[in-house]
Amino acid sequence: MKRRKLYWLTTLLATVSGASAIRTSTADEGMWLFNAVPKTQMKATYGFEPTQEWLDHVMLSSVRFNSGGSASFVSSNGLVLTNHHVASDTLYKLSTAENNYNENGFLAKSQSEEIKAPDLELNQLISIEDVTARVNAAVKADLAPQEAAKARQAVMATIEKESLDKTGLRSDVVTLFGGGRYHLYRYKKYTDVRLVWAPEAASAFFGGDADNFEYPRYCLDVTLFRVYENGKPAKIDHFLKMDPNGAKENDLVFVSGNPGRTRRILTQDAIEYQRDVAMPRTMNTLRRKEILMQQYGLAGPEQKRRSKDDLFGIQNSRKAISGMLLGLQDPGFTASKKAEEDALRKKVAADPKLAPLAAAWDQIKQAQEKRKEWLKKPVSMRTKLYSIAETLVLMAKEDAKPSAERLREYRDSNRESLLQELLSEAPLYEDLERVQLADELARLIDDRGGNDPIVALALAGKNPKERANQLIDQTDLFSLETRKKLAAGGLAGIADSKDPMIQLARSLEAEYRKVHEAMDSIEEQERQAYSKITEAKFAVGGDSMYPDATFTLRLSYGAVRGYESNGSVPAWTTLGGAFEHEKQHMAEDPWVLPTSWKKSKDKLKSNTPFNFVCTADIIGGNSGSPVVSRDGAMVGIIFDGNIESLTADFYYTDKVSRAVAVHIAGVLESLRTIYDASHLADEMGK
Amino acid sequence: MKRRKLYWLTTLLATVSGASAIRTSTADEGMWLFNAVPKTQMKATYGFEPTQEWLDHVMLSSVRFNSGGSASFVSSNGLVLTNHHVASDTLYKLSTAENNYNENGFLAKSQSEEIKAPDLELNQLISIEDVTARVNAAVKADLAPQEAAKARQAVMATIEKESLDKTGLRSDVVTLFGGGRYHLYRYKKYTDVRLVWAPEAASAFFGGDADNFEYPRYCLDVTLFRVYENGKPAKIDHFLKMDPNGAKENDLVFVSGNPGRTRRILTQDAIEYQRDVAMPRTMNTLRRKEILMQQYGLAGPEQKRRSKDDLFGIQNSRKAISGMLLGLQDPGFTASKKAEEDALRKKVAADPKLAPLAAAWDQIKQAQEKRKEWLKKPVSMRTKLYSIAETLVLMAKEDAKPSAERLREYRDSNRESLLQELLSEAPLYEDLERVQLADELARLIDDRGGNDPIVALALAGKNPKERANQLIDQTDLFSLETRKKLAAGGLAGIADSKDPMIQLARSLEAEYRKVHEAMDSIEEQERQAYSKITEAKFAVGGDSMYPDATFTLRLSYGAVRGYESNGSVPAWTTLGGAFEHEKQHMAEDPWVLPTSWKKSKDKLKSNTPFNFVCTADIIGGNSGSPVVSRDGAMVGIIFDGNIESLTADFYYTDKVSRAVAVHIAGVLESLRTIYDASHLADEMGK
Repeated sequence: MKRRKLYWLTTLLATVSGASAIRTSTADEGMWLFNAVPKTQMKATYGFEPTQEWLDHVMLSSVRFNSGGSASFVSSNGLVLTNHHVASDTLYKLSTAENNYNENGFLAKSQSEEIKAPDLELNQLISIEDVTARVNAAVKADLAPQEAAKARQAVMATIEKESLDKTGLRSDVVTLFGGGRYHLYRYKKYTDVRLVWAPEAASAFFGGDADNFEYPRYCLDVTLFRVYENGKPAKIDHFLKMDPNGAKENDLVFVSGNPGRTRRILTQDAIEYQRDVAMPRTMNTLRRKEILMQQYGLAGPEQKRRSKDDLFGIQNSRKAISGMLLGLQDPGFTASKKAEEDALRKKVAADPKLAPLAAAWDQIKQAQEKRKEWLKKPVSMRTKLYSIAETLVLMAKEDAKPSAERLREYRDSNRESLLQELLSEAPLYEDLERVQLADELARLIDDRGGNDPIVALALAGKNPKERANQLIDQTDLFSLETRKKLAAGGLAGIADSKDPMIQLARSLEAEYRKVHEAMDSIEEQERQAYSKITEAKFAVGGDSMYPDATFTLRLSYGAVRGYESNGSVPAWTTLGGAFEHEKQHMAEDPWVLPTSWKKSKDKLKSNTPFNFVCTADIIGGNSGSPVVSRDGAMVGIIFDGNIESLTADFYYTDKVSRAVAVHIAGVLESLRTIYDASHLADEMGK
Repeated sequence: MKRRKLYWLTTLLATVSGASAIRTSTADEGMWLFNAVPKTQMKATYGFEPTQEWLDHVMLSSVRFNSGGSASFVSSNGLVLTNHHVASDTLYKLSTAENNYNENGFLAKSQSEEIKAPDLELNQLISIEDVTARVNAAVKADLAPQEAAKARQAVMATIEKESLDKTGLRSDVVTLFGGGRYHLYRYKKYTDVRLVWAPEAASAFFGGDADNFEYPRYCLDVTLFRVYENGKPAKIDHFLKMDPNGAKENDLVFVSGNPGRTRRILTQDAIEYQRDVAMPRTMNTLRRKEILMQQYGLAGPEQKRRSKDDLFGIQNSRKAISGMLLGLQDPGFTASKKAEEDALRKKVAADPKLAPLAAAWDQIKQAQEKRKEWLKKPVSMRTKLYSIAETLVLMAKEDAKPSAERLREYRDSNRESLLQELLSEAPLYEDLERVQLADELARLIDDRGGNDPIVALALAGKNPKERANQLIDQTDLFSLETRKKLAAGGLAGIADSKDPMIQLARSLEAEYRKVHEAMDSIEEQERQAYSKITEAKFAVGGDSMYPDATFTLRLSYGAVRGYESNGSVPAWTTLGGAFEHEKQHMAEDPWVLPTSWKKSKDKLKSNTPFNFVCTADIIGGNSGSPVVSRDGAMVGIIFDGNIESLTADFYYTDKVSRAVAVHIAGVLESLRTIYDASHLADEMGK
């Protein structure tokens, strides 16, 4: 699943945060809050109702990769199981031209060989508290949107700071139902995270971009980390037991993970904006970056290695978003959306108590018009080095304000996470930064036009390529020491800096803030409107509802089940099937199993379940989510959705849409037989 | 060079046709008309002045590939030498899953083995006649732009028809200097064109997309055809002799070919429109198609084969246009353009005789605004099958009018060329048409928005993928018989057709005509304005000027010369250097020489010149142009320009910009030693 490239998804796609579902759920629909699980519905469909103890155990066993992805604790000694494609960002950062862990895999034969990741932060959700009343009380009804946005951010930052000071836990106020509810999530953080085992990319991503989002699949898309505290493996109370015999056809299963973002609440106007404006633009940007990375990779094998991780993330997003867009381009969807919305608006109009809510839809419409106006204005250049410069410049000024008044990323309670990224020891590649910066400067011209004064500032009289070369030649931000010094030097340090990258970020700072304020104001208008729509839906539809995904922990459920698509597609594949699949594709790249598999073929129990599908409602960000049985034991780990499931951003269907998981039996068997890692298989679940 | 993919270039890029140069030429600048060669200037720079006999001989030895590209006659028996990448469209059409001539090469051991190309048309320029007065006389001064455009087209069609009837020659009225001059070009056509020899793609395009537009190069980018008349090799009076000892450092050389399109006359406003609107959009489209073809190719080796030719053309255009765009994004270029234009406008304003011309620049500005309005309106879907349907539908209605009143493509004098394309026996691939049509429908939504009534017509209630599947499943246009029947059936045949692709083209016909008329009207405004600007320039700058490229025969000249770019870049490479180049890239794809080369390595004279560069002013469409010595003998054949030369669309420079050619010595040596084709090497030049 596709949340891993959080960088891309949030930067390119961020619109409504946490809008709520358009209707009460049907079938296995829903990404449920752990404090509002639809027990009655589960009982009615599957004859099973989770106890509070069950829910607490699963919640506490679940782990979020703050970099984008999900995972779970699988041993008392701190083992964490996630996807290879969630881990690959770290694998890539730990790799060099000589040791390519991403391609060739890795195994720590003992704990002393486990390697520390440069900048991972893992979050374990500890508690959820409803703070809606306090947030709303702080936002006076007569404030202009921009002031309202500031007031809301301030109270959220205050709540978070208080909570952090009181509990020492990471504390995030999460906006749910597009602004209808605010919940305080408290997390225990793990920042000493070490790599334990990863298979080869050829096995984890067998079938490559061609098989991505397809099914049947044969991917060992898993990696093991271990969390440490005080230099020792952390002691974990809640971890999942293994059930290699689980996930039989039609079994009820649960998915506990962090779906990144859905937009099921969007109104017709917002959908149109996405379909006709925002998503086509995102597709253009993704294709642009895909070609750029491909071209960069042509320079040689080392460039290919350096670009591979980004390239995968981009291709993955491009394929995902094209699937979503196809869903929106379906006149059938548009018609049903319209019918649903018209019916709700009619009910609102007919009920005098609800009448004050009626304006919400027009407010959303106006907000979309404003989005169009501002669409091409952002000035942030999306390269690692420029992002560092921009963060340093903004941070210096923000730190002069009280935490509650700062831009949200710079609040005290987020400082540790921010610095971890800013001062990461992960490698920066000069040649890669060069081509990316040249492209971003060119993109700025495309967006704002060559006569724009901001463009003139950015180019400083040169063409994009020459200007990028100049900046990269002269900047000193590649040095971690320089970054640390600037991060510590405050406003004066930034003002004195002769670094051209810092100077560039400074020259664009005013425009950055202008655009940021405008976007804040638009989002506040939307939040207020969606909160009204949510109220209307609670009033009209009643009972149980789940909010749109917000990259926070949710529980989905469904059945292990095949489907019909040009014939029957089976619920399961097997380890032996991987060899068949290779043969069917004449063992041409990307259908080449690694040597380790070929060597072990005869020993391998070929009928071991490998990948399987279920009807649970998931989306990007759920990558690495544990699939759990009624008994709360692990039966698999989510790694993808089939191509038909991509519409889940906007609507759920269980006809042919499926979540795709690695079966835990396949993981254990391959650890033992292929990877010479029985000690890990033995540790898992204990 | 990059004219070959004429489909892409014209469809995506067509704007001003044949605008004139902004200033009189300097250094080796200029793509000169054969009837207005700058003899004085040549004499001054190189001490050489071509005679009329010399010019006639070179002109008559030059050949245009109507599909996009240049070539020359190289034997009395009809041999034609062009680039492999100009031929590849034909190689691809002649190939099957079993015989991949494009990849593996081809050799006819005798004339009986030569294979007829399905739809090639070769043009030999016979004469040029100035018809400006007659064209302008037909366009009354008080006509509205749309009426003026019609009147102009009508008189051009009439002139062409008269000439065709009188001479039997293909007759095209060419718009030069953006509308400042009209010349009648008469061509002898060859339509029985047979494949004689082609090397492997691995040799022709050695270094692939990575080396494309780079230098030093090592590409045998050549292919031999033979033209036939009445089933026998055509007798050719004017063909080029071979000079394998030519093209020494600093030698004067000439390039005689068909540069596709330059836009050096564009005003500042038109440049801005290109930089900020048109070209970024084209880049988005190219990247979109590049990714689409890549994804299609993932399905298997046969899909890879089917997509390779299109993919190469797209990548080539993408790389070319990104180079042009970078030139426009240079603030230095914008500043010098402005200075030049301001100076000219000042002179025009100061001279009462020129005052009536002063409005031209504002007229261009207004035309750019109109271009923006209409930019996203075109409804033609760019797939082979839809183009066929659209052509059939339009032709039926156009044929009911007198030739002079028809849309220009449907005039009588163009009928033979049109039918050759429409009724080509080249293969159509169902799966490829399917993905391309789905993408084009999605693109129509991106362009016009999902609520547009034209989009609703096109989709007929389905999403783009489903709709494309329906159309492809149900159409009968894959059958040549059906196409012939419809082409012959006129309006009634089209009206009665139940073919859904025909019905789709019919439902979009009205909108097609509306957009076409609007574009005609904009172009007429531009033509009138550029004709005034040309007049001003002739008046102010005086003497010798060359018009922008128009895919008609031009003569360029310059010196064989290396350049400085991170050290000295030599003027020549050698056959032996190809093996070195392979070694430097560790013989990884795309740096893998074919087996034939490896087998012949020991016999090959390794110091034979292979590729070389010169300062001649060329651009896409010059691909395959002969490079000719003072003596009128062939020393090489153009196949590329270096990356620095791509700004040639907008301005010429000889500092590091170079045209790249295959040396004829390398061609002859490889024919003899590698390809077992001494009989062809012996025939060449005789």
